[in-house]
Amino acid sequence: MSTSVLDMSMSLDGYIADPHDFLGGDDGERLHKWADLPSEPVARFQDEWNAAGAVLAGRRTAELMDHWGGDHGGLPIFVPSHRPPGPAARWGYPLVTYVTDGIESAMAQAKAAAGDKDVQVRGAYTAQRALEAGVLDEVQIHQIPVLLGDGRRLFDVLTSQIELEIVRVIDTPEATHIRYRVRR
Amino acid sequence: MSTSVLDMSMSLDGYIADPHDFLGGDDGERLHKWADLPSEPVARFQDEWNAAGAVLAGRRTAELMDHWGGDHGGLPIFVPSHRPPGPAARWGYPLVTYVTDGIESAMAQAKAAAGDKDVQVRGAYTAQRALEAGVLDEVQIHQIPVLLGDGRRLFDVLTSQIELEIVRVIDTPEATHIRYRVRR
Repeated sequence: MSTSVLDMSMSLDGYIADPHDFLGGDDGERLHKWADLPSEPVARFQDEWNAAGAVLAGRRTAELMDHWGGDHGGLPIFVPSHRPPGPAARWGYPLVTYVTDGIESAMAQAKAAAGDKDVQVRGAYTAQRALEAGVLDEVQIHQIPVLLGDGRRLFDVLTSQIELEIVRVIDTPEATHIRYRVRR
Repeated sequence: MSTSVLDMSMSLDGYIADPHDFLGGDDGERLHKWADLPSEPVARFQDEWNAAGAVLAGRRTAELMDHWGGDHGGLPIFVPSHRPPGPAARWGYPLVTYVTDGIESAMAQAKAAAGDKDVQVRGAYTAQRALEAGVLDEVQIHQIPVLLGDGRRLFDVLTSQIELEIVRVIDTPEATHIRYRVRR
């Protein structure tokens, strides 16, 4: 059975990007620095990322990334949106599917495409909609020991209280990696 | 030497209280539920809280708590504020000191009073001012596996990037307890 996972590097003050969508800090990469260091935990996360079978991406994120060039490392991409896709996504990218009848439908299609593998969820807004709709299964946070003071928050438009269960904590000097299961 | 510590229970989405200053969730106590369970980690944190020698409290927090009745479990309380204290703090509470010449001065006075013990920092706004002024030494976060969706954030008015060092992670089902040292 497929599991939908939001995987995000987040500062202690809750930011996942600076105000210009870079990854924080003076060099614009502060939040992802941990993943550049070769280590056992990093290798494990890379295995988990590579185990995905489909991507569900928010439209803003998908367009910002130009739909990852049409696929996400070979994976199909599903974009929930009430507006029709732009030209590239409509005609140029056969692996990109815009889903106009809601996030539940988009997730169902992504899980069907992923088979036994995970669905990676991309984009803070869409992740929060998936949480509220009850279709996000797990949240993997890489909590970075930095306060950025400004930027884009991961959680800022959530309208309901959601309980989580701590599944796994990996403690490294570069980040505290906490995996949560969403309680239903 | 005295260490200044901010100790806070925080939801994964960064809230330390609901919009009405209660501790979150339907029962108004969600964020502190972990501390009610008898356990080795809870006992250890209670020891740490009891090892404090003085309190530095933001004015809003101090007034909201009526200055903890004049002392904080017997500890002296220092309140940085540019306005003079209200009547109770001025005449009724000999252990409460309002400090009008800045947070650095307030912290110096609190550390002098604490001796070798810790200074507990209370109040999100004041903690952020202490961080920016370089007088907060450590941050102990009890990260609670819940998304509250609304409330008062711990970090929301920080104007500079601040690097932290992970000192200790205690992994329990009820909370992930992460202690940070502030890098200078």
